[in-house]
Amino acid sequence: MSFVEIPKNSPFTYENLPYGVFSTGCETRHRIGVAVGAHVLDLSKVSHLFNGPQLASHQTVFSEPTLNAFMALSRGAWKEARETIITLLNVDNPTLRDDQNLRSSALVPLEDVTMHLPASIGDYTDFYSSIEHATNVGTMFRGPENALMPNWKHLPVGYHGRASSVVVSGTPIRRPNGQTRPKDAEPPVFGPCKLMDFELEMAFFVGGQTNDLGSPIKMEDAEDHIFGMVLMNDWSARDIQKWEYVPLGPFLGKNMGTSISPWVVTMEALAPFQVESPEQNPKPLPYLCHADPYSFDIHLTAAIQGEGMDQPAVVCKTNLKYLYWSMKQQLVHHSITGCNMRPGDLLASGTISGPTEDSFGSMLELCWKGTKTVPLGGDETRKFLKDGDLVVMSGSCEKDGIRIGFGEVTGKVLPADQL
Amino acid sequence: MSFVEIPKNSPFTYENLPYGVFSTGCETRHRIGVAVGAHVLDLSKVSHLFNGPQLASHQTVFSEPTLNAFMALSRGAWKEARETIITLLNVDNPTLRDDQNLRSSALVPLEDVTMHLPASIGDYTDFYSSIEHATNVGTMFRGPENALMPNWKHLPVGYHGRASSVVVSGTPIRRPNGQTRPKDAEPPVFGPCKLMDFELEMAFFVGGQTNDLGSPIKMEDAEDHIFGMVLMNDWSARDIQKWEYVPLGPFLGKNMGTSISPWVVTMEALAPFQVESPEQNPKPLPYLCHADPYSFDIHLTAAIQGEGMDQPAVVCKTNLKYLYWSMKQQLVHHSITGCNMRPGDLLASGTISGPTEDSFGSMLELCWKGTKTVPLGGDETRKFLKDGDLVVMSGSCEKDGIRIGFGEVTGKVLPADQL
Repeated sequence: MSFVEIPKNSPFTYENLPYGVFSTGCETRHRIGVAVGAHVLDLSKVSHLFNGPQLASHQTVFSEPTLNAFMALSRGAWKEARETIITLLNVDNPTLRDDQNLRSSALVPLEDVTMHLPASIGDYTDFYSSIEHATNVGTMFRGPENALMPNWKHLPVGYHGRASSVVVSGTPIRRPNGQTRPKDAEPPVFGPCKLMDFELEMAFFVGGQTNDLGSPIKMEDAEDHIFGMVLMNDWSARDIQKWEYVPLGPFLGKNMGTSISPWVVTMEALAPFQVESPEQNPKPLPYLCHADPYSFDIHLTAAIQGEGMDQPAVVCKTNLKYLYWSMKQQLVHHSITGCNMRPGDLLASGTISGPTEDSFGSMLELCWKGTKTVPLGGDETRKFLKDGDLVVMSGSCEKDGIRIGFGEVTGKVLPADQL
Repeated sequence: MSFVEIPKNSPFTYENLPYGVFSTGCETRHRIGVAVGAHVLDLSKVSHLFNGPQLASHQTVFSEPTLNAFMALSRGAWKEARETIITLLNVDNPTLRDDQNLRSSALVPLEDVTMHLPASIGDYTDFYSSIEHATNVGTMFRGPENALMPNWKHLPVGYHGRASSVVVSGTPIRRPNGQTRPKDAEPPVFGPCKLMDFELEMAFFVGGQTNDLGSPIKMEDAEDHIFGMVLMNDWSARDIQKWEYVPLGPFLGKNMGTSISPWVVTMEALAPFQVESPEQNPKPLPYLCHADPYSFDIHLTAAIQGEGMDQPAVVCKTNLKYLYWSMKQQLVHHSITGCNMRPGDLLASGTISGPTEDSFGSMLELCWKGTKTVPLGGDETRKFLKDGDLVVMSGSCEKDGIRIGFGEVTGKVLPADQL
């Protein structure tokens, strides 16, 4: 138990302790914090207290403006940091509890902070690891008999995304202009995207030392390179995507913005929620096999609040555990050709859809390519997103009285510029 | 004329003055230099001499370990830097010429330097802008009647690449292991890539201030965001690529390494070699149109030196001017959805093939998917690359007695690791 009060329903319990980068009005410097209840523990103010064998000579990582240097340390160092923070916040430990000066400078009210991207993201990769999502999209565009491509069950399909346009929760997203071809027999046209969508995803940050180019990360070492997770909304312009993506994949349909939640929940915090991934049949090639369970029971929701609405209406309830491919498999596959994975790289799941219609993770699936309306309560319905829509995604785990929350990733759709 | 001697056939003439990042054995710090003849002018040693109105308050950019901060300045600042360097190296200017101390510290023999990546590359994008290459590949895989996809002539098709695996010329490239499916009716297999290839490309570095997410770069401002160019070898594992790339595009088939030449030739230096791009029919949408010529007459070669060979054998002679889409069009298209383009971002052309069989920019095309052998002289032939092959690409412009060279981008194929 911590001496810092944890409000009921706070996502940031004493068992959670996620890392983020924040600033305040009176101290605009970006710095690393840990969310606990309604407060942020400013690690730059307590870095001298990380005196364990792994961290004593690396205390400066807590004074950095991003988490990259901390992520670059070993898994042992991450564990020691967590233990140090747990000890520091413990109700029986006077070090911080009774040092009023330190306490008032190091514990910042959550309501006073502005959050920033937790890391400088070197590369961002997006996978396509939900079999339900891939099947839904494949069925819509190629019919049910060809829904999954031949490679889909043999490897975690993915593609390189755009790192510069990854933004922190709360950043508004401008509806893009772009090229589309509404009618197949006519030339393409230019104008605002008409099929603006969200994708409910999760993503993990790579940690540990960068592997040398040419030297893959082995499956037995994969866990040493998975630092922690965030929620992600991978905004998508479906009409732009449809026209551009053959044969080299999604490009501009995805780079108007990708939003992530600001607090990185560590794999240590998530350990109690580990579950088996769905059975894989056919069994993947040996380099992709791991015996231990490495999926997580994380409840996820996506909600939309239109401009006239009082509160967001939930349109999707899904769960990370539905994913066919695990994060270990994604990471090992990504580096099997020798690709170097750097701390701060972000690997996303792809849209997380579940088996039922209310668990589909995108409007494309929820409105089934525009053939259905999605009710938002009252008279409000949607097929795709409207200007002014606020999209709110949240995620949490709960089991045996332990609750771990991710908080939210939010973003509002701004109207397109007139070009 | 410069007081620094320019050896005959040096790519680094007084009219060229490309920027790079280097270190030396006795000074291992990475720093910015300009290649001139057989020397490198160490800009960190002469930064105090950049006293023009644009640069006087930005001299520190020349003491950075990468070109990013300099690239982030305005086009006016780039021009002023070039003029300052031209003046400084001029045979009639005593400032550097007669200051023996400064001269001996600031002019480093080219043979003494180790080159590094010129910039920290935030994002790397690869286009597909050669109509000859796209037609060749399309013909091989889909037949001549469907060679070009319907979107190809309407927009510069491209995809997000992997930034972490971009390496400087000279870095050996390990033949990757990966998943392939040699026989369509059988399950995929794991092992070393059997169809290792090069792609002869050029790439440009983005410069200028980052545009805000949501605010595209306009065509009339495009030139303010194009800093300079390098040669690129976009190594490709064709068998891995073929199995993985549907539907989200090339991924692991491309991320075992992408090599670039170390010296960034500026657009100012290339201006005399500006030529019209091929005629575009149909005319692209207005946002993609520009009236001025913005292609360049750059002669390019690719050569292979097998382990038993005395020298590289040229297998491809092509030219940047064949590209259907211009760099301005690539940049403007890339940001039209509001994607933010940061100084140091790298945008590549895609394989540059010409109209004749000896101008194809990849082994895939030169051996026409394995149906022909490519002679290397003597008994040596190739279809795809062998272990130990050194691939050497070079590029240069020549006109009215002015010569501008890019130098080379080289890389040797190392044998695959046994996994």
